Amino acid sequence: MANSKFEYVKDFERPDYLLPNTWLVVRIDGKGFTKLCAKYGFEKPNDKRALDLMNAAAKAVMTDIPDIIVGYGLRIPQDLHPIRQKRVSTFSAYYVHLWSTYFPDMPLAPPLPSFDGRAVCYPSVQNMRDYMSWRQVDCHINNLYNTTFWTLIQQGRMGATEAEEFLKGTLSKDKNEILYSKFHMNYNNEPEIFKKGSVVFRDYELVEPGSDNVAETIDDLAEPLNQSKTQAENDKKRRAKARIVVEHLDVIKDDFWDRRPWLLSNKPGKIPKLT
Amino acid sequence: MANSKFEYVKDFERPDYLLPNTWLVVRIDGKGFTKLCAKYGFEKPNDKRALDLMNAAAKAVMTDIPDIIVGYGLRIPQDLHPIRQKRVSTFSAYYVHLWSTYFPDMPLAPPLPSFDGRAVCYPSVQNMRDYMSWRQVDCHINNLYNTTFWTLIQQGRMGATEAEEFLKGTLSKDKNEILYSKFHMNYNNEPEIFKKGSVVFRDYELVEPGSDNVAETIDDLAEPLNQSKTQAENDKKRRAKARIVVEHLDVIKDDFWDRRPWLLSNKPGKIPKLT
Amino acid sequence: MANSKFEYVKDFERPDYLLPNTWLVVRIDGKGFTKLCAKYGFEKPNDKRALDLMNAAAKAVMTDIPDIIVGYGLRIPQDLHPIRQKRVSTFSAYYVHLWSTYFPDMPLAPPLPSFDGRAVCYPSVQNMRDYMSWRQVDCHINNLYNTTFWTLIQQGRMGATEAEEFLKGTLSKDKNEILYSKFHMNYNNEPEIFKKGSVVFRDYELVEPGSDNVAETIDDLAEPLNQSKTQAENDKKRRAKARIVVEHLDVIKDDFWDRRPWLLSNKPGKIPKLT
Amino acid sequence: MANSKFEYVKDFERPDYLLPNTWLVVRIDGKGFTKLCAKYGFEKPNDKRALDLMNAAAKAVMTDIPDIIVGYGLRIPQDLHPIRQKRVSTFSAYYVHLWSTYFPDMPLAPPLPSFDGRAVCYPSVQNMRDYMSWRQVDCHINNLYNTTFWTLIQQGRMGATEAEEFLKGTLSKDKNEILYSKFHMNYNNEPEIFKKGSVVFRDYELVEPGSDNVAETIDDLAEPLNQSKTQAENDKKRRAKARIVVEHLDVIKDDFWDRRPWLLSNKPGKIPKLT
Repeated sequence: MANSKFEYVKDFERPDYLLPNTWLVVRIDGKGFTKLCAKYGFEKPNDKRALDLMNAAAKAVMTDIPDIIVGYGLRIPQDLHPIRQKRVSTFSAYYVHLWSTYFPDMPLAPPLPSFDGRAVCYPSVQNMRDYMSWRQVDCHINNLYNTTFWTLIQQGRMGATEAEEFLKGTLSKDKNEILYSKFHMNYNNEPEIFKKGSVVFRDYELVEPGSDNVAETIDDLAEPLNQSKTQAENDKKRRAKARIVVEHLDVIKDDFWDRRPWLLSNKPGKIPKLT
Repeated sequence: MANSKFEYVKDFERPDYLLPNTWLVVRIDGKGFTKLCAKYGFEKPNDKRALDLMNAAAKAVMTDIPDIIVGYGLRIPQDLHPIRQKRVSTFSAYYVHLWSTYFPDMPLAPPLPSFDGRAVCYPSVQNMRDYMSWRQVDCHINNLYNTTFWTLIQQGRMGATEAEEFLKGTLSKDKNEILYSKFHMNYNNEPEIFKKGSVVFRDYELVEPGSDNVAETIDDLAEPLNQSKTQAENDKKRRAKARIVVEHLDVIKDDFWDRRPWLLSNKPGKIPKLT
Repeated sequence: MANSKFEYVKDFERPDYLLPNTWLVVRIDGKGFTKLCAKYGFEKPNDKRALDLMNAAAKAVMTDIPDIIVGYGLRIPQDLHPIRQKRVSTFSAYYVHLWSTYFPDMPLAPPLPSFDGRAVCYPSVQNMRDYMSWRQVDCHINNLYNTTFWTLIQQGRMGATEAEEFLKGTLSKDKNEILYSKFHMNYNNEPEIFKKGSVVFRDYELVEPGSDNVAETIDDLAEPLNQSKTQAENDKKRRAKARIVVEHLDVIKDDFWDRRPWLLSNKPGKIPKLT
Repeated sequence: MANSKFEYVKDFERPDYLLPNTWLVVRIDGKGFTKLCAKYGFEKPNDKRALDLMNAAAKAVMTDIPDIIVGYGLRIPQDLHPIRQKRVSTFSAYYVHLWSTYFPDMPLAPPLPSFDGRAVCYPSVQNMRDYMSWRQVDCHINNLYNTTFWTLIQQGRMGATEAEEFLKGTLSKDKNEILYSKFHMNYNNEPEIFKKGSVVFRDYELVEPGSDNVAETIDDLAEPLNQSKTQAENDKKRRAKARIVVEHLDVIKDDFWDRRPWLLSNKPGKIPKLT
């Protein structure tokens, strides 16, 4: 309804440029979390409750928004414009809402935690998987560094600058060696959630590698979407029934994707029988 | 730190296009609020607690982020990229955080309220003010319609379809007349918060119209920003001291802007003495 | 070299958003060609010299810019920003430069012909082929209409309005029938250049359908590009040696693409022996 | 006309992001002009014929497109999308078309000269003028360097590397001194076209500084455009009558803009009487 001479201001709006038929990844980053960690005394190098809160918020977002396929990577072929903010905004809302469950003795106080979001379009499955691999490699590198750094401080009684200096130029195997020889710590025995991060997805019955034709799946994706409406409705219902799980798996190797073909095909799998 | 062969995926990122030296307006819209209103039984046509919650969230966001000048309109001449999501995300966080203050007897349950945000750049003061005027005209038109519509239903015992049909083609004066003749209601006496909406801003000492050289102010804005660092620090401190107020004023006429020159100049005014 | 206080103006530049690893299509449209056709008396419905000039300009552009693969569709995985303007600009330059070859008796006079360009990224082979199919279907529909329309005028002595009215609501088979029954014209016998348009590409030895593994080709495309420099140099040389041809073929069916696998693989084929 | 199942490919198009009510600057750069200069033997450091050709092409473009206000800077408040390519494309067309007038004895041969274009939106008059100033400062710095460099080579018999080495770290006054003391050349006496570059604009009667209210002009620009259609038609006619001139003036100082208020107001001035 045109209601005033001021309405011309709408012409200044610009839609986001998100390309159809691509894998849309929304990357969510906490802002000012260094301050936040200090304020609420998060444990170093990893605070299990804080990680659980992040994962619970991610699960809640995926429950609200069935289009999201895996972790923070999502693929939505239709109208993409209003997606970006909503995801980040919904994530922030759940983070604040669920806070008291994970930190019952520490009420939130302003300034509240806040998150930035970036939406990136990946044209091919390979590009999207490489994005996930990039994040997991990054998680590994950071966690190995942080684990060694904080062990040097907490158990080795080094200062922060000293620890930083000590680690300068070290490779992965050096850090493994430091942890093992100095502190009798085997990095491989660290919790998977710290080493691999968390991947969140709908859980269907796993598929034996080889039994699923992945090539066909990729071809299907290349086709413009013309699924019947009924099929889409059925898919939606099956998706709503699926349990959303948080796991700490290797997403770089093919195995993760081969055994969960629904992640690339966007077709819901078989709901596993509970036994 | 370049850490893997996967890092090329960063090249797919695209920054938001926000033009420097413009008035950046971030418009925040609740998504699926029709459902939310029903779920929590918001009063019709206006729920005072829900409006107060929105205003409290807006105030909290402006407290966290001193760059915001007025309401949802903000002007930030430097690096603009990460702003959009953070505003919406922060707003969502406060909305959820403050919910229990305004609805103590109705705990929030998933799906949580969520908000979309749109950032629009306005090159001139006139364009930005026209945007504000557009929103306020819209608020007036909607509120007059809703007030009449719900009065017809709540006091006139009409059904929704009947009321809609009854109002089809009516002008503002017709709706005023319906309210007055049928229900002895003077629309002018309705609360300002319903008729004018809410404008949130930092409060300094008002300036007498005429005493402030607005033209100069506009010219200043046209100048590329080269304020000294100290001056910027001082401004930041004065801004932090200012009280943020929620008012229900006419923002279409010049008076609102003439008496609050700090809104257009982005220079903090004089902190009023408390008496 | 930072050379003055004015240099901040560079921060207002925004790069084009072209997504890597996609098929980049640059669509070039003549502007104001209705006036141009009248000014230089182009024949209706098709002016062979004008079409030949367009094709000659396209060939010249593809000779200058080896990245272009086919017709106006081109795929360039590296830095995409400066491409858009250059293609259109180069096309305009050749169009003007070659004009006198095709219209030796009609010198160009201002205002000169000018062209608009639009760059569109297509994420999958299927999307890109659908774009080509869309253009060819459009060419067919327009040419059948124009041929019938101008035959009604030129041979049927109708006026323009009368012919337009006469054709309103007719289907393809109706237009075919009008041409045949009224004017003893078989549309199928019209020149292929009018019915199919022109496709411009580098010519290598054709491949028997079935002998080439297209699926593999598509997979290759999904891989991030990490060809060795030497290979790239060799490819460039073979591309430079290839003859660029203008043909009037069906690009909708698979056959065109199956027999010319170099179009989708971006790997130059075998230079045919001249016999 | 929706004509086929392929038409969905249109949804992949993205419009350019050009903000309304801003000063649109289209910057045109020759690509590969180093090679071009060598190929056609352009004189060093400045080839007068090549500069004249550029200016003639710019004049021709401004004659075709009355929206362009000055040089390569143009302001068009309405629909901006198709502008970018057309300007560059039209410039290329005229460059090629006019080549033979300026280089009658050197026919153009492929690869033809080609141009890139960048469109940048400037929100304020000050930003736009700073852009122009930036270009003119750049022209000055480059020309002083090139003049000294080539004089060292052509008259001082230095090699290119030697001259480069000789000039490393020199300031403007040093280069002036080198030219004067070694070659008895006063840089101030160099042609204005080399020192200042060329500015192209419509010529109306000059206005005495002080007699025109520039502040009002800027205010007018801030107003949303709602000129009557008749007025717009009249303006268009007056613009078409105005002579387009190429001058070599200082565009950094206020004087240039104060005496030609039509450049900032976008209202055509008074056509000077020919005497």
